[in-house]
Amino acid sequence: MTGTDSQPARSGGRGRVLTVAKIARLAGVSAPTVSRVINGQTGVALETRRRVEEILREHEYRRPGASSSVAILELVFHALESLWALEIIRGVEKVAREHDLAVVLTEMQGRLTPGRAWTEQVLTRRPTGVIAVFSELTVAQQSQLATRSIPLVVVDPTGEPLHQTPSVGATNWNGGLAATRHLLDLGHRRIAMLSGPTQWPCCRARLDGYRAAMDAAGVPVDPDLVRISRLYVEGGLADGRELLDLPDPPTAIFTANDLQAFGVYEAARRAGVRIPDELSVVGFDDLSFTRWSGPPMTTVRQPLEQMGATAARMIIDLAEGRPLEQPRIELTTELVVRESTAPPGRHG
Amino acid sequence: MTGTDSQPARSGGRGRVLTVAKIARLAGVSAPTVSRVINGQTGVALETRRRVEEILREHEYRRPGASSSVAILELVFHALESLWALEIIRGVEKVAREHDLAVVLTEMQGRLTPGRAWTEQVLTRRPTGVIAVFSELTVAQQSQLATRSIPLVVVDPTGEPLHQTPSVGATNWNGGLAATRHLLDLGHRRIAMLSGPTQWPCCRARLDGYRAAMDAAGVPVDPDLVRISRLYVEGGLADGRELLDLPDPPTAIFTANDLQAFGVYEAARRAGVRIPDELSVVGFDDLSFTRWSGPPMTTVRQPLEQMGATAARMIIDLAEGRPLEQPRIELTTELVVRESTAPPGRHG
Repeated sequence: MTGTDSQPARSGGRGRVLTVAKIARLAGVSAPTVSRVINGQTGVALETRRRVEEILREHEYRRPGASSSVAILELVFHALESLWALEIIRGVEKVAREHDLAVVLTEMQGRLTPGRAWTEQVLTRRPTGVIAVFSELTVAQQSQLATRSIPLVVVDPTGEPLHQTPSVGATNWNGGLAATRHLLDLGHRRIAMLSGPTQWPCCRARLDGYRAAMDAAGVPVDPDLVRISRLYVEGGLADGRELLDLPDPPTAIFTANDLQAFGVYEAARRAGVRIPDELSVVGFDDLSFTRWSGPPMTTVRQPLEQMGATAARMIIDLAEGRPLEQPRIELTTELVVRESTAPPGRHG
Repeated sequence: MTGTDSQPARSGGRGRVLTVAKIARLAGVSAPTVSRVINGQTGVALETRRRVEEILREHEYRRPGASSSVAILELVFHALESLWALEIIRGVEKVAREHDLAVVLTEMQGRLTPGRAWTEQVLTRRPTGVIAVFSELTVAQQSQLATRSIPLVVVDPTGEPLHQTPSVGATNWNGGLAATRHLLDLGHRRIAMLSGPTQWPCCRARLDGYRAAMDAAGVPVDPDLVRISRLYVEGGLADGRELLDLPDPPTAIFTANDLQAFGVYEAARRAGVRIPDELSVVGFDDLSFTRWSGPPMTTVRQPLEQMGATAARMIIDLAEGRPLEQPRIELTTELVVRESTAPPGRHG
């Protein structure tokens, strides 16, 4: 079950070259029959096929081209906890399938940097490329891939990507701007922002878009209304509750992702604050269930599936030696206005 | 990029055996250095490593054990459209990682049976095993796997599994029974059921559980209140609307999955019917966002992550030649009561 790469002598010790003719002799069948079995073709009796397979296994036969024909695209996630991940997977998988690439999925259970075991496995598998989503590879890991000519593309980098590391993201700053401008246009002035950790460029850009819209409208940002929160429902619930408990609470909350916005929904529900009458909420991502939430959520749509597909296409270009037109691609975000936003006024 | 398995002569034509000594000679380095590069060890100068890798590629060198060290677990989904899929993936991935198996994910874009291209790719990859989720392999495909001693485990079979095909599911019948009994205990009598397509055993079992609970309570099932619906939000929305439009509408609706239940939420919202005051709703699955929906949803929990993990463990047992204790494992479902159910009475 474990890799045998560390024992290079193992199959060499066993193996004089095992030819098709020799297998045929051992199995008592014709050479064309052996070829059919090796190539997975039909038209071989079950019993015969079993006998040939048995000999292949016994002699640890490796099909010619077997290794290179397992063309693999590695896809690494820090966590598989949300539809966010699923939409990216779908995009990657779709493009990979068109190119006969097998997508190998790894979850790092919340860690941002893959461990040594992952690196060793990946180097053994010699993939066509590696897509890292919201994760960081160490400089050493990036070098190990580069040395072996294994291209790397990062989706939503969690740090400043190394010079020249190709990456895919969305226009996060524009999204933050559009969301905040929408709330300002409705007449809101006390607009809070729940940001994710700002060392992550995607979160920092959304927060900066919020600030830019506020500045452009001449509305000062109240530091009490800007919170760094966890990118999960629990974060939105805890910080949403604190915001609603302020002596002068916000009339609108813009969050860095839809899960946080759900947390704000729940905080409002518990506090008896009605959305959108007493509180407007804007999320970020447009995960599929936001449109069925009560009320349907105004949110900034990220084209997650296309982001995954774009990353996969970049890998294929790089693997086939085509230069990328640009090392960093940002797909556009779009404000989707539903029913969680309305003019302020009935609160407080 | 495409498999080369159909050209068995290709590397043979190129290849006299390429020894470490010969590579060392070609690269002008020592044999231990070549071994270090082949085994992915550190301590080789970048330039040297590049030169050796170049020669390996030029001669299409295949690392000894390379093929067998890419130990793959194939995971096939009919569709990746819901958190339902993500939770199963997590369970499979976790167990696979513990066993150094690379999880290769395939989505069939809604088709239930994989096509020929998939079969060919999988047979080329020679995986440790195949897990098919809510999908059917043809008899021919099952035989092709069996012949090569590649174990197959099905999660939530869409048809009656072939005799002896190991499978994992949940206690769907019990779940249907518990959900319906909960509604009966609250005093409901006009209880509707939105079922999924009943040719699928998991859906049929949930419907039968509903009927069993109704029968046990002596409440006749009104055929108008039982609908076969699509397992998506849109199905719940369309059929939910029709049910609410009946002259004598139901006071409670039990759905075959959470997405349908969300559709019913939306149908109720549009009809101005309040949940749970005027309509009780019970879902099935307990996807993470149900607890944050408005109102938080009463639903039947399926242990999806454990189902994925169980399937992966069955593959490993089979691959290592350990007999399964039982070919069919059903993990227990559990009714989770939240705020979408209440006694009837304020409607009509």
